[in-house]
Amino acid sequence: MPAPIDFYFDFSSPYGYFASTRIDALARELGREAHWHPILLGAVFKATGMAPLTQIPLKGDYSRLDMARTARLHGIPFKMPDPFPIATVAPARIMLHVGQDNPALARAYARRVMHAYYVDGVGIGEAGEALRLAGELGMDTGALAQAIASEAVKALLRKANDEALERGVFGSPFMLIDGEPFWGFDRLDTIRLWARAETERQP
Amino acid sequence: MPAPIDFYFDFSSPYGYFASTRIDALARELGREAHWHPILLGAVFKATGMAPLTQIPLKGDYSRLDMARTARLHGIPFKMPDPFPIATVAPARIMLHVGQDNPALARAYARRVMHAYYVDGVGIGEAGEALRLAGELGMDTGALAQAIASEAVKALLRKANDEALERGVFGSPFMLIDGEPFWGFDRLDTIRLWARAETERQP
Repeated sequence: MPAPIDFYFDFSSPYGYFASTRIDALARELGREAHWHPILLGAVFKATGMAPLTQIPLKGDYSRLDMARTARLHGIPFKMPDPFPIATVAPARIMLHVGQDNPALARAYARRVMHAYYVDGVGIGEAGEALRLAGELGMDTGALAQAIASEAVKALLRKANDEALERGVFGSPFMLIDGEPFWGFDRLDTIRLWARAETERQP
Repeated sequence: MPAPIDFYFDFSSPYGYFASTRIDALARELGREAHWHPILLGAVFKATGMAPLTQIPLKGDYSRLDMARTARLHGIPFKMPDPFPIATVAPARIMLHVGQDNPALARAYARRVMHAYYVDGVGIGEAGEALRLAGELGMDTGALAQAIASEAVKALLRKANDEALERGVFGSPFMLIDGEPFWGFDRLDTIRLWARAETERQP
């Protein structure tokens, strides 16, 4: 099987959520797997001097409209959460911790968290809520609560962010395939075009 | 005929150039006309605090790669110009001035200018080059040189920028259809989806 699609996202990125509803099917289409990587955009914005989309004059209003429209036109359930954006340290740490032993469960958790935030309006940034959602998937929330407060798991998230930055990741969603970078939900179509062109180039 | 598609672009925007190669066909597909509006992104960036794409850390490198890839995958002739970005006051003033009496000639001029910059590497920001290209289309370059130095034509461009900002335009390409805003070359596909949904909503 060819190398996986590395799929980077922040839980507080609507376009990241949109991509999460499509990335596995796209990966299958290309005969690949998708590896899901939660990151914190805040750390990335520090490196690039960028700001959250919805807080930029003019662009902010447009992006809220475009998010709702994108969801509607693609048939993705979505209600703009409030507050937004939020810090997503808690669910990111839980996902990274769980993913060490069980990537499939970590991905199921990520889906559950994004559905909770973007459909049910749950405040997933709060550790209590992030843990409760893990509990719904049968995880031991007591052990998880200890884990995400540990230095080891904190370091795991810092390392994930650093590695993403080193690979040139500056937004969400961000996909890397054989080293080729793609940024944005609207680049999923580009990935299809690119993969077809690559196949034709190397028959 | 339904209202036109208002198509805003800066001559120094590669994605604006890509859109210019597709916008008329898209408009025809929707039974509309495209009205072309040159603007200066510099003025817009002042209002939004944004910076030219290629000058942002990480995002800059990515955008250069994405521009070349977009052109390649869509079959659009393109060579990243150098210097880039450039001030495009001269061709914008010429286009606006000519467009007052002859929108079709103004559009032909815009196409000629973008081809010169993105395919032949001509420095279209220089008044001499911008005028020479107008001459190639049969325009009186002496009269044009006088016109674009006049207060009336300077005011025309300032007004065009102000009106664009008032309508929420903050990037290039930017399309407005029945008041609905679309930003980016990748939103041409969105326009199709949106138009189809609108048609179904109002049969």
